[in-house]
Amino acid sequence: MDLKAVFQPRTLCVVGVSQINPLSPGTVIYQKNLHEMEVEVFGVNPRGGILDDRELYRSVSDVPKNIDLVVICVHAEAVNGILEECGEVGVKGAVVVSGGFAEIGDEGVKRQDQLIRIAKKYDMAVIGPNCVGVYSPPYVDTFFLPSERLVTPPPGNVAVISQSGGVLVDQFFSKYAERKIGVSVAINVGNKAVIDENVLLEYFKSDPRTKLITIYLEGFREKEGALFLRKAAECFEKKPVVVFKAGKSEYGRRATASHTGSVMTASSIASAAFKQWGIIEAENEYEIITFSKVLSFRLPSIRRGDVAILTISGGHGVLCSDLCAKYGLNLVEFTEEEQEEMRRLLNPSAAPIASLRNPIDLTGSLVDNDVEKVAEYLMKNEKVEAVILLMLPYPPTISMQLGRRAANIVRKYKKPVVAYVPWVQKYQMIVEGFELNGVPVAHTVEEAVQMIKALKLKGEAETRINRGLCYAGLPSVG
Amino acid sequence: MDLKAVFQPRTLCVVGVSQINPLSPGTVIYQKNLHEMEVEVFGVNPRGGILDDRELYRSVSDVPKNIDLVVICVHAEAVNGILEECGEVGVKGAVVVSGGFAEIGDEGVKRQDQLIRIAKKYDMAVIGPNCVGVYSPPYVDTFFLPSERLVTPPPGNVAVISQSGGVLVDQFFSKYAERKIGVSVAINVGNKAVIDENVLLEYFKSDPRTKLITIYLEGFREKEGALFLRKAAECFEKKPVVVFKAGKSEYGRRATASHTGSVMTASSIASAAFKQWGIIEAENEYEIITFSKVLSFRLPSIRRGDVAILTISGGHGVLCSDLCAKYGLNLVEFTEEEQEEMRRLLNPSAAPIASLRNPIDLTGSLVDNDVEKVAEYLMKNEKVEAVILLMLPYPPTISMQLGRRAANIVRKYKKPVVAYVPWVQKYQMIVEGFELNGVPVAHTVEEAVQMIKALKLKGEAETRINRGLCYAGLPSVG
Repeated sequence: MDLKAVFQPRTLCVVGVSQINPLSPGTVIYQKNLHEMEVEVFGVNPRGGILDDRELYRSVSDVPKNIDLVVICVHAEAVNGILEECGEVGVKGAVVVSGGFAEIGDEGVKRQDQLIRIAKKYDMAVIGPNCVGVYSPPYVDTFFLPSERLVTPPPGNVAVISQSGGVLVDQFFSKYAERKIGVSVAINVGNKAVIDENVLLEYFKSDPRTKLITIYLEGFREKEGALFLRKAAECFEKKPVVVFKAGKSEYGRRATASHTGSVMTASSIASAAFKQWGIIEAENEYEIITFSKVLSFRLPSIRRGDVAILTISGGHGVLCSDLCAKYGLNLVEFTEEEQEEMRRLLNPSAAPIASLRNPIDLTGSLVDNDVEKVAEYLMKNEKVEAVILLMLPYPPTISMQLGRRAANIVRKYKKPVVAYVPWVQKYQMIVEGFELNGVPVAHTVEEAVQMIKALKLKGEAETRINRGLCYAGLPSVG
Repeated sequence: MDLKAVFQPRTLCVVGVSQINPLSPGTVIYQKNLHEMEVEVFGVNPRGGILDDRELYRSVSDVPKNIDLVVICVHAEAVNGILEECGEVGVKGAVVVSGGFAEIGDEGVKRQDQLIRIAKKYDMAVIGPNCVGVYSPPYVDTFFLPSERLVTPPPGNVAVISQSGGVLVDQFFSKYAERKIGVSVAINVGNKAVIDENVLLEYFKSDPRTKLITIYLEGFREKEGALFLRKAAECFEKKPVVVFKAGKSEYGRRATASHTGSVMTASSIASAAFKQWGIIEAENEYEIITFSKVLSFRLPSIRRGDVAILTISGGHGVLCSDLCAKYGLNLVEFTEEEQEEMRRLLNPSAAPIASLRNPIDLTGSLVDNDVEKVAEYLMKNEKVEAVILLMLPYPPTISMQLGRRAANIVRKYKKPVVAYVPWVQKYQMIVEGFELNGVPVAHTVEEAVQMIKALKLKGEAETRINRGLCYAGLPSVG
């Protein structure tokens, strides 16, 4: 099975292009690839015709080139015939957008079984059915939602696998774009008849574009769960895997049953199992975003969770302290001597009024230089594993260079630093100064603490993997 | 004590205006009121001079008009002398920006005691010391942070009281502005030597500009807590009070001690007490924002917490179901008959594939009209107390009118409806269509559920107040 043909196709054939309805899925996909992506595009309509000055072919066999990937947007009854034809002419991969398969009951289950047989017969990589498919910039985009309706994240190193198309284009696309998290490939697996999370983990493990794999999951079919754990554990040696599992409550479980009917929720695959096998679990829609962001920055992980907070607002220090307690992190205690060492680094206005316990509160009398010096002190202090900077740009003594200046200091050391800066357009010079120099910026104080939590979860997973604790207990796969 | 003179002064005198340093607190306050606010402004500098073509006076007594409010930005040692002078010439209120009082130990405590004596002697309403003071549009703004560095929320009906200036200008100002939550008056109480939360609750209870009171709190002094409960309970009969209490963990408690040193954390004033006396408690930085938003819309409260979810994405339905379970809300179960009634309302594409359980998933085949009809059905169904609309603008069949159309229907009924729409500029027509017609829009699925939680907490508080359960147990105040 050639998944590279699906994610980096040279040629694409869209079956079900309408000349009449500009918003039909096939037409949207045809046109967005023609105008926005790099792949060479061919359209199929049984009646032929012309669209955007290009000939529409009457069938897949009529297309005059070898086809890497086909997208099928026709009624369910017609799908398998077209797929058979694709196999015969050597198409390598297919995205079946059409619904009307296992999710509609008996008749659909039969149809889906036949689809699986055809895919196996021709060793064809089939995504779906009942999905939005694949977004793989700059090559191909099979999402039938018009691009101007979406918010698309920048290209980057995070692969996204989602069991829900809605969650994919919203939680991942909109929120990733807002936070400038870059995507390598995004896939909605739909009914996952042929290509499921496990096949994709195997692929992304050695995909050079991907440094982090994030997954939205509602449930597994029988035995799929055990294999998932094995695949994720194997992956982790090269790149982290983050899972956001929905449907964990009774209400959620019932909603999952209505949403992806054929798929059983494997309640045995719980948080404990994820933890056991080195999978980093995000517990809510905020954590999946913040974990994605901090892990895409590839900061070093931490073991003990010993944190220093450097703030310019006492109130933010209090909020952050409460959150460190909530997330199981420890606030390093500084000795009187250490506090005096830090105090001597400060400008004369801040020195007498700053609080040098932890949180370290430089107060609104700080200047950029104070942040640089105290941050460097914390980088050198071995008690401190990670630093949270709470940098509010409100006092007039802070310059818009603060992000760059502080980041330039801390990146000399192998110690993770994250920042909170209000995510407002006019502070973007500070935000970018941090982020372009390797310090991720959170949207809220809680997100900053979640980032440190992610680095601690990664550290715990590494410890398990290194000690062989992971594979030792790995379930056998039938 | 005349608090109206503090919040709606006709004349303002700023003591400590510098001709040399344009960023000194006194100069920033002088200029921002001169150019941005409606109050008539006078500046005081012991050496006199001219600033912005206006004379600077050598003392408060030299100002040729009666002064409603004075702002004092001078060294701590000079404050009490100036305050005494203010009392003598009949100034009604003062904001003492200067630090160097109780927060610095013995010497400062003595200074603060003297300040209190002077305030009492002249019955002067003194805010602070050690604070950023008061923002009360369009009248006055004593925050010494330059306006261009801040993000200022629109004028509105929410009063904000904060023990931290940093939290006030960030959590409340930036986040309120982002979510279009309007502020009537915002106050940072600082050391709260004279004016504390209790005095302010008494004032805002009958302030016609204020419909909701939100408070960021780190701790109380002795006996203050009991009075706070009584004042908040009294307030609640007219308008809700929302508290966000920080410093609840051991780390947070220690950080609070460093931040507002003289103030004891009354651990006895815990969540249980807030609940008992009708105060709505926000548990984190997200809830304080979402509670503020939904309560500022003044939607009816709910009692049982029986919710219907109307979504166009199955995945979002699952996420929202999990969150309803987390927040103690119930998903209404619809009978087969009710489901069929709803199905008959849908367009022919959506009808066969929609899931009419709860969550109600209209799928991406919906049109605006489906949302209108099903929403109206839910408004009429007595089992449903509140509705969460998860409205993703990605399918091409949704129009930008969706917000207005759906809101126009639901506002005919006395039943709360909240929506989640991705908070992105190009979807603002949908967002505004909802919000201008009375349906608040959340930034995340979790925020939408938090909004319903707030309405349930308000309902519980109303029940307690109505049954007299609140006052029955109210502690006596010494």
